[in-house]
Amino acid sequence: MTLPYFGNKKVLDFEFDRIKQGEWLKKSGINTPQEYKNIKDAEFPVIIKSFGASGGKGYSLVNNKNDLDIKIKLFKNRKFVIQKYIIGVPLYIHYFYSPLTKKLEILSMDRRYETNVDALGRIPFNIEPSYVVVGNSPLVLRESMLPEAYEMGEKVVKKSQELIDEQGLIGPFCLETIITPDQKFYVIEISARIVAGTNLFIEGSPYADLLYNEPMSTGRRIAREIKNAIKENKLDQILD
Amino acid sequence: MTLPYFGNKKVLDFEFDRIKQGEWLKKSGINTPQEYKNIKDAEFPVIIKSFGASGGKGYSLVNNKNDLDIKIKLFKNRKFVIQKYIIGVPLYIHYFYSPLTKKLEILSMDRRYETNVDALGRIPFNIEPSYVVVGNSPLVLRESMLPEAYEMGEKVVKKSQELIDEQGLIGPFCLETIITPDQKFYVIEISARIVAGTNLFIEGSPYADLLYNEPMSTGRRIAREIKNAIKENKLDQILD
Amino acid sequence: MTLPYFGNKKVLDFEFDRIKQGEWLKKSGINTPQEYKNIKDAEFPVIIKSFGASGGKGYSLVNNKNDLDIKIKLFKNRKFVIQKYIIGVPLYIHYFYSPLTKKLEILSMDRRYETNVDALGRIPFNIEPSYVVVGNSPLVLRESMLPEAYEMGEKVVKKSQELIDEQGLIGPFCLETIITPDQKFYVIEISARIVAGTNLFIEGSPYADLLYNEPMSTGRRIAREIKNAIKENKLDQILD
Repeated sequence: MTLPYFGNKKVLDFEFDRIKQGEWLKKSGINTPQEYKNIKDAEFPVIIKSFGASGGKGYSLVNNKNDLDIKIKLFKNRKFVIQKYIIGVPLYIHYFYSPLTKKLEILSMDRRYETNVDALGRIPFNIEPSYVVVGNSPLVLRESMLPEAYEMGEKVVKKSQELIDEQGLIGPFCLETIITPDQKFYVIEISARIVAGTNLFIEGSPYADLLYNEPMSTGRRIAREIKNAIKENKLDQILD
Repeated sequence: MTLPYFGNKKVLDFEFDRIKQGEWLKKSGINTPQEYKNIKDAEFPVIIKSFGASGGKGYSLVNNKNDLDIKIKLFKNRKFVIQKYIIGVPLYIHYFYSPLTKKLEILSMDRRYETNVDALGRIPFNIEPSYVVVGNSPLVLRESMLPEAYEMGEKVVKKSQELIDEQGLIGPFCLETIITPDQKFYVIEISARIVAGTNLFIEGSPYADLLYNEPMSTGRRIAREIKNAIKENKLDQILD
Repeated sequence: MTLPYFGNKKVLDFEFDRIKQGEWLKKSGINTPQEYKNIKDAEFPVIIKSFGASGGKGYSLVNNKNDLDIKIKLFKNRKFVIQKYIIGVPLYIHYFYSPLTKKLEILSMDRRYETNVDALGRIPFNIEPSYVVVGNSPLVLRESMLPEAYEMGEKVVKKSQELIDEQGLIGPFCLETIITPDQKFYVIEISARIVAGTNLFIEGSPYADLLYNEPMSTGRRIAREIKNAIKENKLDQILD
């Protein structure tokens, strides 16, 4: 593509490659679920994720050794990773990092709506869970946990500038977390781009409303950054 | 009533009668859950719904033959239907069809909040589920599934013009769907009128915000249609 | 504190003391879950709540006598209360009582997002539930239940004027309810102050939107009350 691109394309390589992404998150100094290289080490429950799985397809939850032996065969021709399954509630945090102001913003939050796993709790008998994302619903985070949510975002931005290149991660990104009963975040994944959950907030979110006196979607925030860069003659800081 | 009525009253007959409604939905060419005329054919789980049940009262989930024999006795003096219980997540899509523009709009979406079925997942022991609707919460749909959501609405509008009368279904209606892990919609029911889930969107929704540059509730959308019909001298197209 | 305080500090004593709070709610004539003074009387399931528990920490769900004997030992050095566990869905109603207009307003509603109890339904095996609040999500209530929601608020305001002092409960407060399948509210707790769930509604809620023609958060509603009191020279009615 010869068209200029908002953001840093090198970051996408780190996002796409599960090994590189895991390295990035771990080196950022944020909590991540343990990964098992050897299935003998697995402490149950675990989740098997095939590489290149998208939208939650290709995930499998396993609660004991016997079940693991059976399910792992279904993954045999694919690359996969085995992670400890963190028991807690999911939260997706939508950030925006501005290279112009050098400030990080939390623009909104959501939780994903997954089929059939978000239906298990409505059925009084056991079925095999699946994690296909079909929607998003809005949430706000307990106030006392906001500083940590903010710091996690800052840590991955900072590490990206050291690990990827000087420009690092810019613009919108999302940390996908699980929160455990001791109020600890586990970061499951990073999306280094605008995420579907922001569709909830076309006219702003409780967080964007605190930062801006006008309806601020993530799309508009990107447009604003480009406009500001043009004004300040700094397009090179935000385009790739 | 001698007062003019926004909408088409004949549609309400088709909505109210479960047999006619089922015929309308099936003939529209959209996915619906299988219904069992003979209980011997039932593939479990199934759900028994008494005719005239409203707000989710009078539904019963059944997971095996033995359970069915017991529960069906409770329905003996009422008319009822036995449907295959689709395992997936519920989504309610709020449409508006304008006879003036001949265009269908998606104004908002919700999921119902049902007691006690939305509590089962918060309890580590089994209880008998019930489906009484007590509220609604907001959602957005995965973008790649929006075209199908839109087409389903178009299909029931088109079929209503063939099956009911020339005017067919107009104004607000809602398709109540279940989405399965293969990202397939099953339409459980149609409400041919304004639904409670639109109460979430008094000042607009992410979908209405994309269509209108002002806060657009379903109520306001109806008022707008009436105003436009007056201006264009086409009240006969929207009143009954 | 010599600074004037918006609200009535005496109310906080009644909120903080579980015995006094229980007395207030029960005498208000609203439904509350049964409390067991003698563990022999407990009808399962029950929930044990330690005094001073906040944000849902220190709650324990118990489903049988054996389990109760084990768990109660963990509470032995703390004061605690044993309540019947009401099976239904939670709803938190945010009220505002204005001493100036003598009117009660419903400003918004939410449900809490709790870890790990809101994850149980996503896991096909049993784990011990915990109730630590980590967020809030928006909801609207079924319309036919709004009059009762409103009356419950009026009842606790009225009783506070008889039980606490003449000024009684003023400004923002929240009733934490469980709704059962017979559409009955059980009030679990009262928060006599602004609650975290209002963070969802920085730019208004469906309920506030019906009352005000501008975005009305609970914070702004308090500011408005103070401004109006200054104008009407009635600051003594709202400050303590």
